[in-house]
Amino acid sequence: MIKVAVDAVGGDHYPQNPVQGAIQAISEDKSLAVILVGPEQMIKDELIKQEYVGDRISVFHAPDIISMDDSPAAAVKGKPQSSIPVGLTLHAKKHCDAFVSAGNTGALLAASAFILGRLDGVLRPTISSVFPTVDGFRLMVDVGANLDAKPEMLYQFALMAEVYAHYVMGIETPRIGLLNVGEEEEKGTENIKKAYDLLRAHPRFVGNVEGRDILAGAADVFVCDGLTGNILLKFGESFPEALSILVKKSIVRHQMAPEQAQMVGMILKEALAQFDYESVGGVPFLGVNGVSLVGHGGSSPLAIKNMIHSAVKMHTSGVNDKIIAYLNNK
Amino acid sequence: MIKVAVDAVGGDHYPQNPVQGAIQAISEDKSLAVILVGPEQMIKDELIKQEYVGDRISVFHAPDIISMDDSPAAAVKGKPQSSIPVGLTLHAKKHCDAFVSAGNTGALLAASAFILGRLDGVLRPTISSVFPTVDGFRLMVDVGANLDAKPEMLYQFALMAEVYAHYVMGIETPRIGLLNVGEEEEKGTENIKKAYDLLRAHPRFVGNVEGRDILAGAADVFVCDGLTGNILLKFGESFPEALSILVKKSIVRHQMAPEQAQMVGMILKEALAQFDYESVGGVPFLGVNGVSLVGHGGSSPLAIKNMIHSAVKMHTSGVNDKIIAYLNNK
Repeated sequence: MIKVAVDAVGGDHYPQNPVQGAIQAISEDKSLAVILVGPEQMIKDELIKQEYVGDRISVFHAPDIISMDDSPAAAVKGKPQSSIPVGLTLHAKKHCDAFVSAGNTGALLAASAFILGRLDGVLRPTISSVFPTVDGFRLMVDVGANLDAKPEMLYQFALMAEVYAHYVMGIETPRIGLLNVGEEEEKGTENIKKAYDLLRAHPRFVGNVEGRDILAGAADVFVCDGLTGNILLKFGESFPEALSILVKKSIVRHQMAPEQAQMVGMILKEALAQFDYESVGGVPFLGVNGVSLVGHGGSSPLAIKNMIHSAVKMHTSGVNDKIIAYLNNK
Repeated sequence: MIKVAVDAVGGDHYPQNPVQGAIQAISEDKSLAVILVGPEQMIKDELIKQEYVGDRISVFHAPDIISMDDSPAAAVKGKPQSSIPVGLTLHAKKHCDAFVSAGNTGALLAASAFILGRLDGVLRPTISSVFPTVDGFRLMVDVGANLDAKPEMLYQFALMAEVYAHYVMGIETPRIGLLNVGEEEEKGTENIKKAYDLLRAHPRFVGNVEGRDILAGAADVFVCDGLTGNILLKFGESFPEALSILVKKSIVRHQMAPEQAQMVGMILKEALAQFDYESVGGVPFLGVNGVSLVGHGGSSPLAIKNMIHSAVKMHTSGVNDKIIAYLNNK
């Protein structure tokens, strides 16, 4: 039985979405058990409300709640009795195989690094994110944990993301691209040029890639510093809403009939489904000594369910052992 | 009479597009004269082909051509007889009031800085770019000239872009936003935090803005280093094509009737017109001692015409004098 601890009070819609996601996950995976971490009574009430009956979901009490606005330090020092540090400690003590949360990303990252520690040989844990392209999801790393990443870090981010992309995302031979202002080898900051040198001999390194190459899917792992990655990620996430505003304006201007407008909306919605993170659910902290994933604050039950499945995959495929071997033997 | 030198062999469609853009520009602005810079015979043939008759377009011979793939050094050392250094030298010697080109951006930037020199008090010239939002264009600075921008540079970029946004783009009181990973003051790299300190007292500084705030138009001038800006700009430019691929897939999946598909395409095209840089035509190098604008390689005659009009506006409104006064007195 694989055990995943789930933050029952993470995200904007707790406890209902984490609880519902957990119920769905165990119904799909018979070898899975879930520990819901958070205020005991609140979770028990929600389980009753959702009419859960069974023995593969248990509750672990953590009375405090870290809000989305709390500083990262809250998880480590300020609120030790909250779901994030309590859940991660359960994981660190091997009472479960993974921890997932749709809560405060900064707090989760800080607590994951502090409580789980780093994998052997890892300079800095990193947060990666799935990124939509015209033909499926790719991985971008780093998206905010290391704003000023040194060349050796960028190199390690690439290798760790490559392992995750292969074993969890199912990309057979992930191509690594270094985000830059031009394709030529001599382009970029000193950090990027040195990272290029480190990646040069890698058989699946496709060289520098530009901003225009991301949506086209020119690589499977896009490597960049956390400043660039974070701004890009949030910029990309804002695109569907911006487009829908512009399309609505256009529909009004053309005084389009309601059924026609509806059809335009349907086509657009489906095209933009590609940009919907629901199906992947969560993204991993790579380089920490454990399996810790974080989901969007607005995560639906579906997104949380998929995040739990990703955590299981990361655990069962032994991603961390493979990262350690890869970083230390190559 | 205002004189603008136009690179007749810049961009992907020369000489026809620059020549046609110049003819359109002088027909719209009776106080404008254009000097077409490039291989004399080629330009004269094109003027005949386009049946130009008049005395407000002249030709200045520059036999060499800088290709889009030439290194920036080509313009300064490698090809001194090409349109970019020849046109900029005409401007430096006051034979004209501005130079515009749809050619090699790197070469143009290097040559503009080298031949025109810097404005008094400017640490580093910068390249800014217009950026589409849900309600019109904003300015982003820097988009590739200064990959590692120091805090003082970021501060100057903000002020220079503010002047341009006001006088050329017609934004009454441009709000300045510092691109960052979060809104809180303590977020970001050391460089960004120091830039925040420098901008803090500015009456129109709206603080840190995130990637999701760009398309929403949360500021009028978005300030960032050239690495982030360049990757963001090219990422944004790739949206329309990626979306059209996704929409086509969706249309095929639904076996939509041709006339319905056409309507969807029309609405989408109009919505994305917002992302079309044609209407602004070109973007300025700010901080150089002159008026030098660059347009997209694929610039249409319309884009080149609009770039010429922007150059005229930048000259007549005295943007550079205002920048000097602003940087040195404030």
